[in-house]
Amino acid sequence: MSQAVMNGERLLASLQALGAIGGLPGGGVCRLALTDADKLGRDWTVARMQELGMAVTVDAIGNVVGVYPGLEDTAPVMTGSHIDTVRTGGLYDGNYGVLAGLEVVAALRDANRRTKRPIAVAFFTNEEGARFAPDMMGSLVFQGDMPLDEALAVRGIDGATVGDELRRIGYAGEAPVGCNRVDSFVELHIEQGPVLDREGLQIGVVEGVQGISWTEFTLQGVSNHAGTTPMHMRNDAGYVAARVTTFARELTQRYGGNQIATVGAITLTPNLVNVIANKALFTVDLRNTDGAVLQAAEAELWAFAEQVAAEEGVQCKRRVLARFDPVRFDPAVIDRVEKAANAQGLSHRRMPSGAGHDAQMLARMCPTGMIFVPSVKGLSHNVREHTEPADLIAGAHVLLQVLTGLADRP
Amino acid sequence: MSQAVMNGERLLASLQALGAIGGLPGGGVCRLALTDADKLGRDWTVARMQELGMAVTVDAIGNVVGVYPGLEDTAPVMTGSHIDTVRTGGLYDGNYGVLAGLEVVAALRDANRRTKRPIAVAFFTNEEGARFAPDMMGSLVFQGDMPLDEALAVRGIDGATVGDELRRIGYAGEAPVGCNRVDSFVELHIEQGPVLDREGLQIGVVEGVQGISWTEFTLQGVSNHAGTTPMHMRNDAGYVAARVTTFARELTQRYGGNQIATVGAITLTPNLVNVIANKALFTVDLRNTDGAVLQAAEAELWAFAEQVAAEEGVQCKRRVLARFDPVRFDPAVIDRVEKAANAQGLSHRRMPSGAGHDAQMLARMCPTGMIFVPSVKGLSHNVREHTEPADLIAGAHVLLQVLTGLADRP
Repeated sequence: MSQAVMNGERLLASLQALGAIGGLPGGGVCRLALTDADKLGRDWTVARMQELGMAVTVDAIGNVVGVYPGLEDTAPVMTGSHIDTVRTGGLYDGNYGVLAGLEVVAALRDANRRTKRPIAVAFFTNEEGARFAPDMMGSLVFQGDMPLDEALAVRGIDGATVGDELRRIGYAGEAPVGCNRVDSFVELHIEQGPVLDREGLQIGVVEGVQGISWTEFTLQGVSNHAGTTPMHMRNDAGYVAARVTTFARELTQRYGGNQIATVGAITLTPNLVNVIANKALFTVDLRNTDGAVLQAAEAELWAFAEQVAAEEGVQCKRRVLARFDPVRFDPAVIDRVEKAANAQGLSHRRMPSGAGHDAQMLARMCPTGMIFVPSVKGLSHNVREHTEPADLIAGAHVLLQVLTGLADRP
Repeated sequence: MSQAVMNGERLLASLQALGAIGGLPGGGVCRLALTDADKLGRDWTVARMQELGMAVTVDAIGNVVGVYPGLEDTAPVMTGSHIDTVRTGGLYDGNYGVLAGLEVVAALRDANRRTKRPIAVAFFTNEEGARFAPDMMGSLVFQGDMPLDEALAVRGIDGATVGDELRRIGYAGEAPVGCNRVDSFVELHIEQGPVLDREGLQIGVVEGVQGISWTEFTLQGVSNHAGTTPMHMRNDAGYVAARVTTFARELTQRYGGNQIATVGAITLTPNLVNVIANKALFTVDLRNTDGAVLQAAEAELWAFAEQVAAEEGVQCKRRVLARFDPVRFDPAVIDRVEKAANAQGLSHRRMPSGAGHDAQMLARMCPTGMIFVPSVKGLSHNVREHTEPADLIAGAHVLLQVLTGLADRP
């Protein structure tokens, strides 16, 4: 049995080949889930699995799993990601994890090498959520926390349903969902953030996915003439929104660590230069890897908003738009990623994932981890998304070592 | 010579009668400048002037001046305001000052009383600026700081020009502009703010009109994923806008007095819950009765915006949208208003005007003052604009005393 060797050039070529399907004129790619472009991308990827001698199954929500048999017929060690993209996506988000997984299999096959456990490479339906909500739909149904019927009935931004579109493109598979056996899961992905790039590191050892709390505030004050209303007689909804925005930043400074906060959206009414705003609608996005700290931050923010609104004589209503608990990946899998990076002499750091990934759904059913490679300038969901070829290849090497290590462990 | 006595009931009736022209179904009035409704309102008011035996002239910008002769043929003591309204205006804004002026003349006439100097009552074209910019157009041309040709060429929101509309409604008068002689000017107006109403006072002795500084800031940051971008790597334009907004409020607290500040408009781009804003466009409206203090506030605000933007790595551009120096009314006229309120046992306070008025244009050519009466809840430019009848009559009494005092002074 010879050593499996990653063919980096072939990986890069496959990324370009898949990226050309649904490719945009100025660069980048558009393969929204379950469109014709997605079908062509799926067909291309399935053909590649078949070339590699993998047994391919398609389940009822359109997730595709290729299995490279092991020496024993056990639950597979799985890797994978997604190949759907946002409307103006890059070549690497999702696709990289799937194609690197296939290159791991190719390397094993080229070396005529079999691991103890099978190795599976999956791509999950509609991870992006850019056409159908929620995102990470395929892995959520795969894992069992979203009923199949509910997912199939989801209507997209263009009015089509998931079920109809799966049938139309020929990916309403026969494999059942919710009863898969998976030994462990490792997802390789571009960071989609600036941390590794700015710090000049090659590998991110992902410890988990941040918890998310999205609150929408509706502040109701009183519109009045900006010139004739003394300061102490104002009920200025816009001012309260600004106070909460600056408080959110202060809170991250006070909490430190992984606490982040963003006020990305605000709408004032009537939004005129010389009229005090009677209404402010704005959102606060809080994230933390620690669920308890996240809850504390949320509670503090809410209390502050209510206090400042009361002081200003403004009514404060809030609505939770989203709330997800943090996901902590498996310590043993995290360790394996770190050791593989070390063994290959790659600079690395432990870090959370700021974005959601299929791996967080798989983490509910089996030991799971993730590997990040740098995103140049942190750009993603952007046609200028880029990762240096050397980094793409380095990440695939780490994936190879982690997958074979897991698959061969006693 | 008997004492002139104000007929309060007739004043109230005339407000209702003029308010019915262009009256809105649910209350309020719409007489945008130089529309058919404005023509009807003008015709009604001119007819009233003629009934009172006043000599009526119309100048080239459509300002109408009725003169009640004095014992001597000198420059008149003038009062007046405007009768155009915003689209959903009330009955009192402007109209009150004009009709109260006519009631002063009626009272003198009923008492067969002549003052030493003539008394003129004027209504100025397009004070509101709701159809044609700038506002206070008629008094600005009357005073001489806007060339007639320029004003006549102004195109309104509906495409029509001031000149064409003046001719169409028959108010392109023959009297020249820019060469009027006015002895002194006093304008009676509703406050359009909440101060008198909240403090339970009957008369505002207006000391001047606040200076105005409007700045539009354009902040250019970098859009990034709210989940994957650590706090210290952000260039968040929305955060900087919030800091400037809260600073503006703090500045008013620090400066105290008449310093006011309003951030009424802000637009974030892309304005999404989970994307750091790369652009914030927002305005700051600063006002103060003291020009030097206003300039200091403006300078401090600009410096703060630049400092915070630099700290956040955000580019900060600014544009001055408007800047008017404060107007200080004539001390002797202010004194006369205060003494008249005292003499009539009316509660009163000195105060600035937060809004612009024709009087601030007249102040450039002659000793000028203003008298305010309360606006219930500070509402104006609103069909619910209201002033209690007793307050309307009290204000007219003060106007009578101030005008006759000025007209009879040695």
